Amino acid sequence: MMTSESTAIDVPESSSVPKRKASLMAASRDGKGIAIFDFILRLGAIVCALAAAATMGTSDEDLPFFNQFFQFQASYDDIPTFQFFLIAMAMIAGYLVLSLPFSIVSIVRPHAAGPRIVLLIFDTVALALNISAAAAAADVVYLAHNGNATTNWFAICQQFGDFCRKVSGAVVASFASSVVFMLLVVMSGLALRRQ
Amino acid sequence: MMTSESTAIDVPESSSVPKRKASLMAASRDGKGIAIFDFILRLGAIVCALAAAATMGTSDEDLPFFNQFFQFQASYDDIPTFQFFLIAMAMIAGYLVLSLPFSIVSIVRPHAAGPRIVLLIFDTVALALNISAAAAAADVVYLAHNGNATTNWFAICQQFGDFCRKVSGAVVASFASSVVFMLLVVMSGLALRRQ
Repeated sequence: MMTSESTAIDVPESSSVPKRKASLMAASRDGKGIAIFDFILRLGAIVCALAAAATMGTSDEDLPFFNQFFQFQASYDDIPTFQFFLIAMAMIAGYLVLSLPFSIVSIVRPHAAGPRIVLLIFDTVALALNISAAAAAADVVYLAHNGNATTNWFAICQQFGDFCRKVSGAVVASFASSVVFMLLVVMSGLALRRQ
Repeated sequence: MMTSESTAIDVPESSSVPKRKASLMAASRDGKGIAIFDFILRLGAIVCALAAAATMGTSDEDLPFFNQFFQFQASYDDIPTFQFFLIAMAMIAGYLVLSLPFSIVSIVRPHAAGPRIVLLIFDTVALALNISAAAAAADVVYLAHNGNATTNWFAICQQFGDFCRKVSGAVVASFASSVVFMLLVVMSGLALRRQ
């Protein structure tokens, strides 16, 4: 086990195969492909996170009538969970932009473990933040659609259909970026393994 | 960079230092300490996950009065989010028990990358499941405590104080096990790095 691994690691340095084959092997073995895929996934996650934040931020709906009991107006900042969602997704989009240089360093220098470990730690934290925002918002969306009889919480999506649709879309986008983060975390582990 | 790494990896095989020192260095370098810490953290996470599931499962409260409008009884299975929470935390406790053998293999054979990669992948999935259950339940707990004026959802914790306290405790326990999973994921990455 140990012997085969240390042999595998030594190949890029002390190989006698032709140069092109060696560099191809090194590229696939040292995780350059993983680093490039990592970069592309981050770009996709930025799109998802920004879409989630923007959709949530623009989700407000006024109904064209009112009475003295209810204020027939719904906006994301009436519901603290959606405020948290907006802030969390904006932070995650910002983090993803800041993480791109580290991802580029991983492409340029596949042997450097430092950037990958930094990315692994912060990706794990970002995954937790992202999925907690998504799950909490999904929960409110579920309540808004279905209500709850025991606690006497009524569904509001009959009145605020557009609001509910926008918010649901934002939740879907944030779950998509959560899935990307899960892939990124596992890929960071695999890339560290290959060194 | 490359040279120093391959030297570091070769040390356990081709060192000339005395045997005991070499094995000590190998133990600290190959992540045996990380593997043992991993095992202990898993035991802690099992306790947290079981506590969360058990607390949620036993959280029901009947009030000693009723009228024709409301059924003054609250239980976790009146609220789908809490059902999901219970199922998710039970699954996570089960997964953690099943993951212990892999953790033991990592202690016995610190060089084997297979068990660590398996653990990394499943830990990431379990982290996502755990934190989504915790965040969704925390959201319902927040609504139960504070209500929401816009959507006309009223706080129920005035009536169901014991229910709310139990459910809040379960949420805290599940956030604790989420933090353990984040540590486990990062430690798996570090342990893979050291090989």
